Amino acid sequence: MNYSGPTVFELGEVAALRQAVKNFRKVETTVVGSGDDAAVVAVADGRFVVTTDTMVEGHDFRTDFSSGYDLGFKAVASNVADVAAMGAKPIALVVAMVIPGHTKVSWLEDFARGLQAGCDELAPDCEVVGGDLAAGDQIVIAVTAHGHLAGVNPVLRSTAKPGDLVALAGTLGRAACGLDLLLHEDKSLAKAYDEWVAIQLRPTPPIQLGIEAAATASAMMDVSDSLALDCNRLANASQVSIELDRTKLEGYAAVLELAALSMTARDDLSRDPMDWVLYGGEDHSLLATFPADAQIPRGFKVIGKVTEQSQDAVLLNGKKLEPKGWDSISS
Amino acid sequence: MNYSGPTVFELGEVAALRQAVKNFRKVETTVVGSGDDAAVVAVADGRFVVTTDTMVEGHDFRTDFSSGYDLGFKAVASNVADVAAMGAKPIALVVAMVIPGHTKVSWLEDFARGLQAGCDELAPDCEVVGGDLAAGDQIVIAVTAHGHLAGVNPVLRSTAKPGDLVALAGTLGRAACGLDLLLHEDKSLAKAYDEWVAIQLRPTPPIQLGIEAAATASAMMDVSDSLALDCNRLANASQVSIELDRTKLEGYAAVLELAALSMTARDDLSRDPMDWVLYGGEDHSLLATFPADAQIPRGFKVIGKVTEQSQDAVLLNGKKLEPKGWDSISS
Repeated sequence: MNYSGPTVFELGEVAALRQAVKNFRKVETTVVGSGDDAAVVAVADGRFVVTTDTMVEGHDFRTDFSSGYDLGFKAVASNVADVAAMGAKPIALVVAMVIPGHTKVSWLEDFARGLQAGCDELAPDCEVVGGDLAAGDQIVIAVTAHGHLAGVNPVLRSTAKPGDLVALAGTLGRAACGLDLLLHEDKSLAKAYDEWVAIQLRPTPPIQLGIEAAATASAMMDVSDSLALDCNRLANASQVSIELDRTKLEGYAAVLELAALSMTARDDLSRDPMDWVLYGGEDHSLLATFPADAQIPRGFKVIGKVTEQSQDAVLLNGKKLEPKGWDSISS
Repeated sequence: MNYSGPTVFELGEVAALRQAVKNFRKVETTVVGSGDDAAVVAVADGRFVVTTDTMVEGHDFRTDFSSGYDLGFKAVASNVADVAAMGAKPIALVVAMVIPGHTKVSWLEDFARGLQAGCDELAPDCEVVGGDLAAGDQIVIAVTAHGHLAGVNPVLRSTAKPGDLVALAGTLGRAACGLDLLLHEDKSLAKAYDEWVAIQLRPTPPIQLGIEAAATASAMMDVSDSLALDCNRLANASQVSIELDRTKLEGYAAVLELAALSMTARDDLSRDPMDWVLYGGEDHSLLATFPADAQIPRGFKVIGKVTEQSQDAVLLNGKKLEPKGWDSISS
């Protein structure tokens, strides 16, 4: 991806930020927007939800795979998913960035457009209300996202009960499949299966479904590291066990079958798409539990049930499901 | 500074975070603390203040000068100063960190103790409610701080009026003097003048005075980059000019005179301590304007006045004061 024009170093922090900030649309909850020491945001019910997530060049992304726009979009997606996983509506973001001085201002503008596009598509009531730009050796993007609970109780990960149903909203395995396609030696594969690559580069978590689930879900969390790992976390936090039904997960794997076969045809390495579904991260779907008699919002699919805590936190068709997935430090 | 024991890579993100989080004290406004997808914080008046600030290893700090504890303390100080500059009380922090995998867990714990010490000393109603730990090549610390306005209007930097008095709470030039002492070839100087070095490593902004000033100040901001630069910013944002009185600034320079002379005795470079006062950053003092008949909180010192906007945004005894100071990108 080519970016032309002056570097941020040449233009200076203040002028570069002014260029980028032009892209942001105002929303009603913002009392004081960017440009002062701090922003002020209204939350009518007197509580705000806050979460932060960081992406590091070379560890979490590569600039030859992701454009500035892609990274802006993904930074929004991964953070608003955490807000929605509490049952809250995302309303405000602040963006702390580290960039090398030689970064082009046009890259920064593309990133800002990606941030706004992420808000427009996933969280239209959300505004970028502030940020900070610092110099460093590699790009770091740390977004902090805020949400409004609108009077409902926050949905924790520690409150699932035996007898609840386990349900999922969003996709599984596509982002991991997309990453494998990007990393594959045969570069034509990423173009052939660009839908899965797009989920890796610009995930689209089901934010509205998270907000709707707040009314009836007993527990909820964002699946960012893998279904296996995050089911284990939810089960441990709630002191329960989870039994997943493999049949219910086969649909997620089936759509990835052709991509797996195409890759194998090129390199002779056998692949099971179910590995992407169980152990792949970054789709940013929502994992929730609901009491058996509760209304489950259309868009959530039941994939298992909650049981009394047993020796294994998570079982897949009766066999222990290892908590394998993405660890942001050791990966 | 020596840190022993296992690295974060060896222990893993989750376990390392658990060690660090043990150091954090709970406060009353935290509805849901760290450990879930997001935290939930109460703000009784239905608004929250939010700001973010980033520190990068090699650009904003050096690990041979600053311990983990120092960096934690400074990260709190620089962020709660921005909250207080709006007239708000700091109540919640989230901390996004990038660290190399070989970082010792004991360093991370020391950093967490510094965060808590910064809260204890500067903002006792503030809790670290969340964070994120990612791997990278250099240490990056991005703190996002939140405050409660308790029913008062936020104090902006754009609302100073001609006729107002310009006042300052906190110190000037000490952090810059401390940095020059640390950088000086004669390492005994940093020990001899350790009070100024301490302000550079662990600044102590007058948070409570910012909250008090909210009742009567017409404008306010944090002096993070330099008095000259930040006076220019306030004047431009308010479309006024500022006239500073050099006599009122001499006290800030006088206490640094001996350190300047000692450095000059070693290297024969002449130094004017007034340069630290006018152009040095990182003391994180508060610059405010007050209507001439307003009550000015004890602890603020009048250093000038606001006039109608003229050709020069800031004058020092009638001469233009250039907006020189710290630029986080080009420095």
